[in-house]
Amino acid sequence: MKSIDLNCDLGESFGNYKKGNDEAVMPYITSCNIACGFHAGDAMTIEKTILLAIKHKVSIGAHPSYPDLQGFGRRYMEIPANELTAIIKYQIAALKGMVEAHKKKLTHVKAHGALYNASFDNSEVAWAIVKAIAAIDQKLIVIGPAMSSMSKIASDMGLRYIPEIFSDRNYRDDLQLVSRAREDAMITDPKKAVQHVLGMVLNNKVRTISGEVREIEGGTVCIHGDQPNAPMFAKSLNDALQKEDILIKSFANG
Amino acid sequence: MKSIDLNCDLGESFGNYKKGNDEAVMPYITSCNIACGFHAGDAMTIEKTILLAIKHKVSIGAHPSYPDLQGFGRRYMEIPANELTAIIKYQIAALKGMVEAHKKKLTHVKAHGALYNASFDNSEVAWAIVKAIAAIDQKLIVIGPAMSSMSKIASDMGLRYIPEIFSDRNYRDDLQLVSRAREDAMITDPKKAVQHVLGMVLNNKVRTISGEVREIEGGTVCIHGDQPNAPMFAKSLNDALQKEDILIKSFANG
Amino acid sequence: MKSIDLNCDLGESFGNYKKGNDEAVMPYITSCNIACGFHAGDAMTIEKTILLAIKHKVSIGAHPSYPDLQGFGRRYMEIPANELTAIIKYQIAALKGMVEAHKKKLTHVKAHGALYNASFDNSEVAWAIVKAIAAIDQKLIVIGPAMSSMSKIASDMGLRYIPEIFSDRNYRDDLQLVSRAREDAMITDPKKAVQHVLGMVLNNKVRTISGEVREIEGGTVCIHGDQPNAPMFAKSLNDALQKEDILIKSFANG
Amino acid sequence: MKSIDLNCDLGESFGNYKKGNDEAVMPYITSCNIACGFHAGDAMTIEKTILLAIKHKVSIGAHPSYPDLQGFGRRYMEIPANELTAIIKYQIAALKGMVEAHKKKLTHVKAHGALYNASFDNSEVAWAIVKAIAAIDQKLIVIGPAMSSMSKIASDMGLRYIPEIFSDRNYRDDLQLVSRAREDAMITDPKKAVQHVLGMVLNNKVRTISGEVREIEGGTVCIHGDQPNAPMFAKSLNDALQKEDILIKSFANG
Repeated sequence: MKSIDLNCDLGESFGNYKKGNDEAVMPYITSCNIACGFHAGDAMTIEKTILLAIKHKVSIGAHPSYPDLQGFGRRYMEIPANELTAIIKYQIAALKGMVEAHKKKLTHVKAHGALYNASFDNSEVAWAIVKAIAAIDQKLIVIGPAMSSMSKIASDMGLRYIPEIFSDRNYRDDLQLVSRAREDAMITDPKKAVQHVLGMVLNNKVRTISGEVREIEGGTVCIHGDQPNAPMFAKSLNDALQKEDILIKSFANG
Repeated sequence: MKSIDLNCDLGESFGNYKKGNDEAVMPYITSCNIACGFHAGDAMTIEKTILLAIKHKVSIGAHPSYPDLQGFGRRYMEIPANELTAIIKYQIAALKGMVEAHKKKLTHVKAHGALYNASFDNSEVAWAIVKAIAAIDQKLIVIGPAMSSMSKIASDMGLRYIPEIFSDRNYRDDLQLVSRAREDAMITDPKKAVQHVLGMVLNNKVRTISGEVREIEGGTVCIHGDQPNAPMFAKSLNDALQKEDILIKSFANG
Repeated sequence: MKSIDLNCDLGESFGNYKKGNDEAVMPYITSCNIACGFHAGDAMTIEKTILLAIKHKVSIGAHPSYPDLQGFGRRYMEIPANELTAIIKYQIAALKGMVEAHKKKLTHVKAHGALYNASFDNSEVAWAIVKAIAAIDQKLIVIGPAMSSMSKIASDMGLRYIPEIFSDRNYRDDLQLVSRAREDAMITDPKKAVQHVLGMVLNNKVRTISGEVREIEGGTVCIHGDQPNAPMFAKSLNDALQKEDILIKSFANG
Repeated sequence: MKSIDLNCDLGESFGNYKKGNDEAVMPYITSCNIACGFHAGDAMTIEKTILLAIKHKVSIGAHPSYPDLQGFGRRYMEIPANELTAIIKYQIAALKGMVEAHKKKLTHVKAHGALYNASFDNSEVAWAIVKAIAAIDQKLIVIGPAMSSMSKIASDMGLRYIPEIFSDRNYRDDLQLVSRAREDAMITDPKKAVQHVLGMVLNNKVRTISGEVREIEGGTVCIHGDQPNAPMFAKSLNDALQKEDILIKSFANG
């Protein structure tokens, strides 16, 4: 029986600023990536999000970013590789310790925003990320873009890699995501998004923004939690996948 | 044979800003408290300071603070206890994970600046600190003010407590430190500072700013690393203590 | 004919974080206080909010704060008076220059959150605020708590002072606001809030949280813009005041 | 009689972190660029630096940067042009208001670090900077790289442009500065630096890093203030220029 993980970026509130519907999305996902305080999140938000994930038995990962709260980690920054590794280690370590304080394990790491995007074709950035993860804990699983070279880098470093596909983002022909700066970046129709995911999960195929069909293989599907209808969409996707006999479970569970 | 630990707050550079003589002070101390990025320090600085401490076989502790880089953590902030605990957990966790990445152990935690001062007579703050430490790791040793109620709070939570005495700070009659806002806060003459320490270590006595003599008992002596002559002072203090047959070793080593 | 100003704290979004219904509230207010980037706001948000205020012919003020984005400026910070004055000057200057870039005038300044509250009974803080305002521009109007000593400080410095009353906050017997940490801080029923304001504007009386009736005199009413129903409430209050023949106009217009 | 301005980036301390020898350099320069709080500087530091510049009759400019304190503004950030303009307006406005509080004028603006470098060949960035300056005050003078297209952009916007040459930085053949990441970025020998400047000021020629001789024309010479020997170097340069009958005066004075 085929299986898939559904992940969501959570804990993206900051101080007095609320973002996302973490509580409402939790029942429909199997793993979450918690912001570490560099693009979003603060210690209280992290604490609450960890407790929520534990309550819902959702695998907990760290979601490190460039240090850019004002830009929400979505702006590329030219940071030397060794400093980038240190910055990412710091963030993973903070999450890991706060999860272990509740007698649970941090299972994975997924880079955020511009850092994630840079890892697709900037191998120096991809190495910086993977090195940081390996240094903190060899058992941590790396989540990264599907069909990117980061997969090989992770396996070279002895780490397990889970390729990620996106439920509501359009793809370019080179299988990178269409930039958020463009109007056609997002798939806003929930029905189309469900079909988009089913195509990738069942047939390992995606129709790119130019209309081409490309091979793609994913181990986890990213759902965005900051849309008002995110919980409803998560539920629809759950239903659609189960109807196709796809088992929804975390990559961290066997 | 009587023994004492010599500790120093290190890793207080930030980005392009350099502070302290970490490398020069290291040979003369037995434990260090590394800034966690909230009052000072950044991921690269933390990384380098950890490596330096490992090289010199110095016990490594976390030095968490109020979130106040511009004020260097020296300004009291009214933060609710549960948020304060989360803020401190985050900082300890970041340090702990980065130390463990080098196959070493974080041994202790010492609060910084206004947070440290608040712990002396604000029991809510003292509890918030100790709870954070206990949540992250029951084996972590708490460093806090000598003769404060924090000692009892730590032991109530099952944690080992090391009372700290200061080499270059004057004391009030209630055994709190004289505020840095006052001109007589610091003991600037190195010879007087050495005598000040010897009195506390050998006789468990201190002469306060008003001229009174008070009982005080310390397990570690704080040396400040950000003065130009810090390394020389550290060396003098080492020599003076050894001449009195005091063994200089970390509290973390038995 | 009696007149009153209605003010609202606006521009409190930050980067990717949205806060308030600035656009919807604008038609019902006569002055606004724009966050300066220390507790909320960033350069883009400030720019957009200024343009919105100009479009609606609303008087523009600066809304400086303690430097505490994570705490939204609601946490008291122990900052020396001369540094506080510099911090406030910086924020007012930034707003003033950005308003003047659009050929308009900054008309007033109102401190935010914990800084506002501290100005009520901490005269050092009140002086620090007023000095900063006077240094930047003697023509700036000071908005501050009704019935506080800040009024006298402002007039001693030659500045015009407009006492502020709150539409949705309960008062203590000493005419300070009930702390937000308490459950009864806010008046959540819009009808009660309208009555609360009418009592203060028509009769210069307020019923405090203990049930006492106290004299109070205000020149501007604060409406909060971050509640979902803020625009509707603003409209109700406008209607109720006009029905009582109160002219709603900015203190800055004559 | 030929004249030249000597400028220095000042006010780059932050909170408890000290940087530069502002006081010692002041007597030897005719204009200064004060950090605005985004890569360095804070309100107190700005205040003190303004007072120091006024005391020494040095022209005061704003030195805006990318928002990157940890990276000291030396890391390129991908920020959309309109947001960049807003960010720069905010910084100039803050400086301008704080200078005018002392009844003096802000005379010029010079971008810092990675923002300055990006303006050399990224015309979108150059436009964003010039637009911000023009929006705040048409009388502000723009300081930017010599031989860059920014000169034309400034004059298209009706602003005066002063091309800058560097006393201690090597040039590439395209007249951009050699990157600080390279070992040969800096001219460390003070005598060579003086010759380097004399060649540019007297003959409008520079020998690039490859050994080529290129035409270059500057209206101000940048001296760096954060080297231990900066004041002495500034003095030597003053002496050498005066010996060649070059008048040292600010571009802002006629």
